[in-house]
Amino acid sequence: MKGTLMSEPIRIAIAGYGNLGRGVESAVAQNKDTTLVGVFTRRDPAQVVPEQASTTILPWDALQDYTDKVDVLVLCGGSKGDLPEQGPELAALFNTVDSYDTHAEIPEYFASVDRAAAQAGTTALISVGWDPGMFSLNRMLGEAILPEGQTHTFWGRGVSQGHSAAVRRVPGVAGAVQYTVPSTEAIEAVREGRGADVPGQDKHVRECYVVLEEGADAEAVREEIVTMPHYFEPYRTTVTFITAEELQRDHAAMPHGGFVLRSGTTGGGHRQLVEYSLTLGDNPGFTSSVLVAYARAVHRMAAQGQRGAKTLYDVPPGLLSPRSPEELRADLL
Amino acid sequence: MKGTLMSEPIRIAIAGYGNLGRGVESAVAQNKDTTLVGVFTRRDPAQVVPEQASTTILPWDALQDYTDKVDVLVLCGGSKGDLPEQGPELAALFNTVDSYDTHAEIPEYFASVDRAAAQAGTTALISVGWDPGMFSLNRMLGEAILPEGQTHTFWGRGVSQGHSAAVRRVPGVAGAVQYTVPSTEAIEAVREGRGADVPGQDKHVRECYVVLEEGADAEAVREEIVTMPHYFEPYRTTVTFITAEELQRDHAAMPHGGFVLRSGTTGGGHRQLVEYSLTLGDNPGFTSSVLVAYARAVHRMAAQGQRGAKTLYDVPPGLLSPRSPEELRADLL
Repeated sequence: MKGTLMSEPIRIAIAGYGNLGRGVESAVAQNKDTTLVGVFTRRDPAQVVPEQASTTILPWDALQDYTDKVDVLVLCGGSKGDLPEQGPELAALFNTVDSYDTHAEIPEYFASVDRAAAQAGTTALISVGWDPGMFSLNRMLGEAILPEGQTHTFWGRGVSQGHSAAVRRVPGVAGAVQYTVPSTEAIEAVREGRGADVPGQDKHVRECYVVLEEGADAEAVREEIVTMPHYFEPYRTTVTFITAEELQRDHAAMPHGGFVLRSGTTGGGHRQLVEYSLTLGDNPGFTSSVLVAYARAVHRMAAQGQRGAKTLYDVPPGLLSPRSPEELRADLL
Repeated sequence: MKGTLMSEPIRIAIAGYGNLGRGVESAVAQNKDTTLVGVFTRRDPAQVVPEQASTTILPWDALQDYTDKVDVLVLCGGSKGDLPEQGPELAALFNTVDSYDTHAEIPEYFASVDRAAAQAGTTALISVGWDPGMFSLNRMLGEAILPEGQTHTFWGRGVSQGHSAAVRRVPGVAGAVQYTVPSTEAIEAVREGRGADVPGQDKHVRECYVVLEEGADAEAVREEIVTMPHYFEPYRTTVTFITAEELQRDHAAMPHGGFVLRSGTTGGGHRQLVEYSLTLGDNPGFTSSVLVAYARAVHRMAAQGQRGAKTLYDVPPGLLSPRSPEELRADLL
């Protein structure tokens, strides 16, 4: 398939091989104008089995030998432990794209990546995915188009890693997963223009599925979870006890999603509502698909001579598509 | 309010003063970084009463005297009769933005505006609004992010001018309005990944509200409507007879909206669904709000030296916002 394209495919490489890296590997295979150079891992490459037999696993130390062989490096490390260091380090060597998602630290991260990329003459796009990512895009568009209005973001139904970990720390808990679920009533209130009346803790419901340790007191565990400050205390929280087998069988998937709603008023008091929503069967699979589309844009922005750190607010949307501007105007506009 | 801003406001003018022009007038008032120079009309300015007392109504012939006084001219003429001529003519004098919406003719219109704008050194953004516009953006993004999938656009609930006119041409009809209504079942099918199974004519329902002429045969009128080829024959069509008073009282508003859904699959067969939807209390009021946000972007692209015809696929989204890139990264990303 790839050979039928006239221009050279975009050479993508992956740095970090967890769920996100595996998602990028699959997404590259779905895009006919991209090709995968390989996956760089800090583990012993001989011990790593790729999803796809054709994927080359390479040692992290070889990264610097690949600067001429890779058009865009997709950073698939974690936002806490990996990206604050890897982002600027690798932007000094490659055009990069990442899904850095610690919202509060974005300005600082942007500055550090920008310094490295500007000095090296590379293009480094940070914080794409869905939130930050497509949700950020829709928050911005909603506000720009309807300046008199309110924006509300709802997350879920999906697994919250932080809340799941908090439940697992409760004594007597052998295993747990926590789903954040947007409140249907709160979404309806926003749709009807009553979003300002909904207290923050009523926007989401928290569903905990808990495996007890042998001999643990279920009622005491439930009480400790629902009264946990910040995490659960202000929210409507349900606790369902399940077996270790059920946890494994029914809660291994990584669904997620959510809503961005902008409710506004235009001249004459007319109500206008914009909704963007995602229903994701697999959270890392979607995030990595966004990363690959933006990797295409990074490659093109680099070719245009745009240097330094960028966010999706800087990217003309047409650059995400493999299609030409002429085709986009004729078929999709 | 406007005086508190440090930089000069963007000077907007309006060419054409129907529903859309009046919407732009209101939208400019909602945006603190824009100011309205005036409205150009082909009618006698003395006979035109503006929505807002402060608005200056100017004769069409004065346009050429305003090239130095206007940053962006918003073209509010019709796509059939006005824009094919006005688009290139006015792009030769001003930076422009328009909502040209004859989808099939967009490539030709783009070429003619591009010739004029490239020669004059202006920036001319065509075909923004919601469809073409925000829906086009979401069709493109959905396809780029989920290359293996299907895109479905639904329109409504909203008034279709073309179908309303077709009903009004039926003998015995004194007045009529036709609402295009997306089929709830069809939307559900798309959400569940069964969108390919839905025949085109089952995606929308057509609701006609009809005022009969005195002595007209209701059953004959109904029959002639529902059997009208192309317009109604293949669709589920309802005809409700109402009085002239009811038509006036209950059907004067211009609601519209719709859905763009992208349903796709990522690695491992995971289902992913992206939905964008609009529920508009006033169709021209929303379109004109989009036009003003993109007028801001046109002003900035012109300042960057980007010349010629553009579409929203060419516009970095951040340029739509009155906020700085730093603020956008800190607050909305």
